[in-house]
Amino acid sequence: MLIRVINPNTSRAMTEKIGRTAREVAGPGVDVVTTCPAPGAGPAAVESHTDEAWAALAVAQEVADARADGFVVACFGDPGVDAARELATGPVIGIAEAAMHVATLSGRTFAVVTTLSRTLGRAHDLIRRHGFEDACVATYAADVPVLELECPGSAARETIAALGERAVREDGADSVVLGCAGMTDLCAELTERLGVPVIDGVAAAVGLVAGMVRMGVGTSKRDEYAPPPRPPASTTATT
Amino acid sequence: MLIRVINPNTSRAMTEKIGRTAREVAGPGVDVVTTCPAPGAGPAAVESHTDEAWAALAVAQEVADARADGFVVACFGDPGVDAARELATGPVIGIAEAAMHVATLSGRTFAVVTTLSRTLGRAHDLIRRHGFEDACVATYAADVPVLELECPGSAARETIAALGERAVREDGADSVVLGCAGMTDLCAELTERLGVPVIDGVAAAVGLVAGMVRMGVGTSKRDEYAPPPRPPASTTATT
Amino acid sequence: MLIRVINPNTSRAMTEKIGRTAREVAGPGVDVVTTCPAPGAGPAAVESHTDEAWAALAVAQEVADARADGFVVACFGDPGVDAARELATGPVIGIAEAAMHVATLSGRTFAVVTTLSRTLGRAHDLIRRHGFEDACVATYAADVPVLELECPGSAARETIAALGERAVREDGADSVVLGCAGMTDLCAELTERLGVPVIDGVAAAVGLVAGMVRMGVGTSKRDEYAPPPRPPASTTATT
Amino acid sequence: MLIRVINPNTSRAMTEKIGRTAREVAGPGVDVVTTCPAPGAGPAAVESHTDEAWAALAVAQEVADARADGFVVACFGDPGVDAARELATGPVIGIAEAAMHVATLSGRTFAVVTTLSRTLGRAHDLIRRHGFEDACVATYAADVPVLELECPGSAARETIAALGERAVREDGADSVVLGCAGMTDLCAELTERLGVPVIDGVAAAVGLVAGMVRMGVGTSKRDEYAPPPRPPASTTATT
Amino acid sequence: MLIRVINPNTSRAMTEKIGRTAREVAGPGVDVVTTCPAPGAGPAAVESHTDEAWAALAVAQEVADARADGFVVACFGDPGVDAARELATGPVIGIAEAAMHVATLSGRTFAVVTTLSRTLGRAHDLIRRHGFEDACVATYAADVPVLELECPGSAARETIAALGERAVREDGADSVVLGCAGMTDLCAELTERLGVPVIDGVAAAVGLVAGMVRMGVGTSKRDEYAPPPRPPASTTATT
Amino acid sequence: MLIRVINPNTSRAMTEKIGRTAREVAGPGVDVVTTCPAPGAGPAAVESHTDEAWAALAVAQEVADARADGFVVACFGDPGVDAARELATGPVIGIAEAAMHVATLSGRTFAVVTTLSRTLGRAHDLIRRHGFEDACVATYAADVPVLELECPGSAARETIAALGERAVREDGADSVVLGCAGMTDLCAELTERLGVPVIDGVAAAVGLVAGMVRMGVGTSKRDEYAPPPRPPASTTATT
Repeated sequence: MLIRVINPNTSRAMTEKIGRTAREVAGPGVDVVTTCPAPGAGPAAVESHTDEAWAALAVAQEVADARADGFVVACFGDPGVDAARELATGPVIGIAEAAMHVATLSGRTFAVVTTLSRTLGRAHDLIRRHGFEDACVATYAADVPVLELECPGSAARETIAALGERAVREDGADSVVLGCAGMTDLCAELTERLGVPVIDGVAAAVGLVAGMVRMGVGTSKRDEYAPPPRPPASTTATT
Repeated sequence: MLIRVINPNTSRAMTEKIGRTAREVAGPGVDVVTTCPAPGAGPAAVESHTDEAWAALAVAQEVADARADGFVVACFGDPGVDAARELATGPVIGIAEAAMHVATLSGRTFAVVTTLSRTLGRAHDLIRRHGFEDACVATYAADVPVLELECPGSAARETIAALGERAVREDGADSVVLGCAGMTDLCAELTERLGVPVIDGVAAAVGLVAGMVRMGVGTSKRDEYAPPPRPPASTTATT
Repeated sequence: MLIRVINPNTSRAMTEKIGRTAREVAGPGVDVVTTCPAPGAGPAAVESHTDEAWAALAVAQEVADARADGFVVACFGDPGVDAARELATGPVIGIAEAAMHVATLSGRTFAVVTTLSRTLGRAHDLIRRHGFEDACVATYAADVPVLELECPGSAARETIAALGERAVREDGADSVVLGCAGMTDLCAELTERLGVPVIDGVAAAVGLVAGMVRMGVGTSKRDEYAPPPRPPASTTATT
Repeated sequence: MLIRVINPNTSRAMTEKIGRTAREVAGPGVDVVTTCPAPGAGPAAVESHTDEAWAALAVAQEVADARADGFVVACFGDPGVDAARELATGPVIGIAEAAMHVATLSGRTFAVVTTLSRTLGRAHDLIRRHGFEDACVATYAADVPVLELECPGSAARETIAALGERAVREDGADSVVLGCAGMTDLCAELTERLGVPVIDGVAAAVGLVAGMVRMGVGTSKRDEYAPPPRPPASTTATT
Repeated sequence: MLIRVINPNTSRAMTEKIGRTAREVAGPGVDVVTTCPAPGAGPAAVESHTDEAWAALAVAQEVADARADGFVVACFGDPGVDAARELATGPVIGIAEAAMHVATLSGRTFAVVTTLSRTLGRAHDLIRRHGFEDACVATYAADVPVLELECPGSAARETIAALGERAVREDGADSVVLGCAGMTDLCAELTERLGVPVIDGVAAAVGLVAGMVRMGVGTSKRDEYAPPPRPPASTTATT
Repeated sequence: MLIRVINPNTSRAMTEKIGRTAREVAGPGVDVVTTCPAPGAGPAAVESHTDEAWAALAVAQEVADARADGFVVACFGDPGVDAARELATGPVIGIAEAAMHVATLSGRTFAVVTTLSRTLGRAHDLIRRHGFEDACVATYAADVPVLELECPGSAARETIAALGERAVREDGADSVVLGCAGMTDLCAELTERLGVPVIDGVAAAVGLVAGMVRMGVGTSKRDEYAPPPRPPASTTATT
């Protein structure tokens, strides 16, 4: 089984980090390939609706061009997942929806800790669309830019941990969902520190896609997700 | 006051039709400019999530490049409205949200009649996001491709009218919302035939934008809709 | 076009203030007339459900007796709007629903700052009826009686501003809705101070009514809002 | 214990019928008094929002003027209940809310069968306000004017029964709620015919008020339902 | 009329206390019998989902074996109410649903104060199932084990009172619902102290059952609550 | 990795069938053990709330007594899952929740086809608790007793297929969820016939449990699902 994990931003360091997590949880018999757009063919980070519109097209192109048994979209806004479902036949899962599904199987409630507060609106849209309003008891932003997660000396780690502790203590969160693919390497450490499951969407999505491929359930190609009349456009950075 | 009405597809005929409606309802002191992407710089029609991802970027680029007191996004999926709000300071309104807001001020309930059933998922997302679940009593698709609305001899007109009549009679809709910018020229005729208000999003959005500009209310630039860190990408048709 | 703005309480000072706002935002070609009940034919202020029942009948009588292209009900509980829709053919809009519709077009979230906490229950009913539960992130009462807003030396202004600041800072409100027609003259000053759009329902309702009249959309006269079997009763103060 | 049952319309025949039901279910130790407005001091029937505004004031006046341990508002739109709660200290219950509470204690789902379709909007408002959206699986109108229920030879009885049967068979309603105080005398016969509990709001409200008085729970006088600043107005028919 | 009140835990002291309340509010003509499982045939207290599964079967057995005009399940998780409705023909009401129904008839909002925080999940399930999400503004746990409520010198009383005061002051609760049958004897004292109605589910349920029996409304035996294909199992403590 | 699949009814034939599916989808490195209660220690089938109360305790006992990395509860009412989460540390997943989670990852909407209509109430409770109200567009009962699914010549298969086709055609379901563990062997055949994904909860739950174990996410042991104060009771058939 081949799972293709798409990082919609152009950071190679983040893509490699994502790949490490994905391969660790994939289990025997599952091959994982990770990709990201070439420089200039996708946003450097997804930190706004404008970035997300670009990321959506970058994801759609990756799926249109590649073959795989299933796809993971490794960005917490789940950009382009709807378009990708039109273009694929296997399962396509975004890391936000994946993490939230797994969180509700681990406990009754969860909290999200993400990077920038300006992206919380999109998170709320996803929470509502997927029916997690009752389960999600808090959403916090560390106000850390996405790429700062890659900087060794950053205070981001501590901020994220503190927000997770607050979610458990004050909001009664049964688990904490990491709101950015770039946080994937914090998962083990935070789980230990917080004493509740900390859920990384990359791991969650790979697990769900692998499970669905094994049970023979792909994307329903009925109507909404049937192949689209036109292929996705190419994108290039405006200069 | 200058309102810019953006048709995100490349049909010039549809863009002109949209412009006629917009100018009719704009009222004294309001200038309307209509635009659409150049051929190859936007989808021929918006009939899938893949098209919509493209349309969103096309809309974002128009808003990034142009000046206006307010913007209308003239496509029923409201593509790119979130990104455009980051890029503008005046109001930015999509025709789907506009039509639904006006419908709930005209009566308790409304129905939507749109083109292709595959786009109903997106319509439901918008209905839920904007809080119209209780008000929207039915959504119907005429299963007419968007551009067929431009064909003189098409049966589309009759199909749309019949669905509207059904919505009033069987679903108790107090008004009918037209689910495509290309239906804008059917509004007067359908209103007469159905005996209830028929609401065209182009007219509704122009009216709302003009009203907001007059009362000095633009897009809230706090956090989510503050200027984005990166401008929108350019797009070109994949060949 | 003639828009009739009905203040359901008997304060002439407040009625005049409302009229000033209404005329400012009405734009060219729109005439605005303001009215209020004669002393003893309506409540001195609308500060309870008991007052509101009275106000509803006072509004219904005004609409039954007068002609206009559209009506605005200038009291934040939207008293009598349902009855008025039965009695009018043009649009009838209350200032609470108007302000909340405009707020959701300006940003994702809003807060309401109103006068007395005992009226918050009615505000919540309106928020829910119109589908704004997700958008409305906070409701605050300044615990200022309605007519104190008319007193020059009152501390009300400062209290309202402080609550608005709190809504933006702590609740993440993208805009602030003023919860009383008597606050209409605070809008400009508060917008400046808070740094986000502050939305006055009087301006919002006039803008929406004018827009609907221009696009030819009135009240749907199908069933619920068809003319009622009996005219509204007259009211007189109990002594 | 004294329970005052207020019929907000001026029909004495209906008031007497309501009284018979109320006394039958009241049980030992409970005195029931029924009242209705004098001719011209309330609507002949409550069949519109305009009628309901009048009825609300008529109810408020009755409660302001009378003493009782608890009050029942015997009209399915529950007009004036909020105002009456301000004016009373004991429980005040409308027959719509009463019937729906009892229905959800009898089974999972219920349907409402009422008189005129134009009153369904108000019924939906009450269903939503009280949290019965999931429980209420259908609402039907017999399209029978309220006072026709008093006519011996009317076909109303059969129409109502047929709609109740449909609700059970097609909508899976576990019980049927009668949507008008004037249907109170149909309850026993319909229960027999439909084979599921048929719930009359008059009986339900009397039972609930009596129970609350016995357990010492009245209206919470905190804030929203504290005594109002002004008494309710008097009303007189417009001529 | 005979009402059987079932305490699903094996505490005889608590059962007697429950009986005292039930008899006080029952009113003339209503006989109350209280029962609880024999030692080892039910949980000592209901403080977990595991306890509740046991309690549900204990309740079902009591109802299967006994005759009564109506049943009350005197445990705040309402264990076994669904099963008991299959086994009875009269009304079966749990004290949680009863208290919440009565609370919403007393005011707009209520708060729940219960024993252990680990039982709040079940409380939330009941709140949502019965449609009280909007009405319930807070849920607090005193973190007092159920049986400690029986200890004379316990600090539980003070903790519960303090949480009730907080619910009224900070959350704006119009009433406070006691979240455990073992709190039934605190009701009068707390009502006095808090200044708002304090609602005990035992009293509420007895009042509702008596009212329903008087109005001739039992459990709807249509489909879901028809007699089950198999009787309930017996249970014995694991050793 | 060891996954224990618990059939809460006593049918060995059904347990074996469930085991076959579970092993097929488990993938390399995953051992599956299936169990069911001894005759008389659990219900013959789960067809009522009374059966379900028994099944819940039977499941709790299995989990209390056994060791495994994760548990599947193979009955569509998900009986005992909450109790089992208290008793286990690894993931515990019911087949109803599992199937519905997977359905929403395959398409926007799904329908449930189950055995007896009297169990639909429980299904609706689960749909609402887990946030699938928007996604679930229809629920149908074939009115086939659970054990008839084991009979070779039964018409059940055809009835189920016909309801599935109706869900796709009339309700626009993107996938069909099988509402009984006993339907697990129909999945492949129905998928072919219906042309949309047909989702069997047994396969879905095994896939989800395996994925969660691989990603190191078990049941959150914080508060609600911490070990219970008392072990589950034993049960025996009433005679």
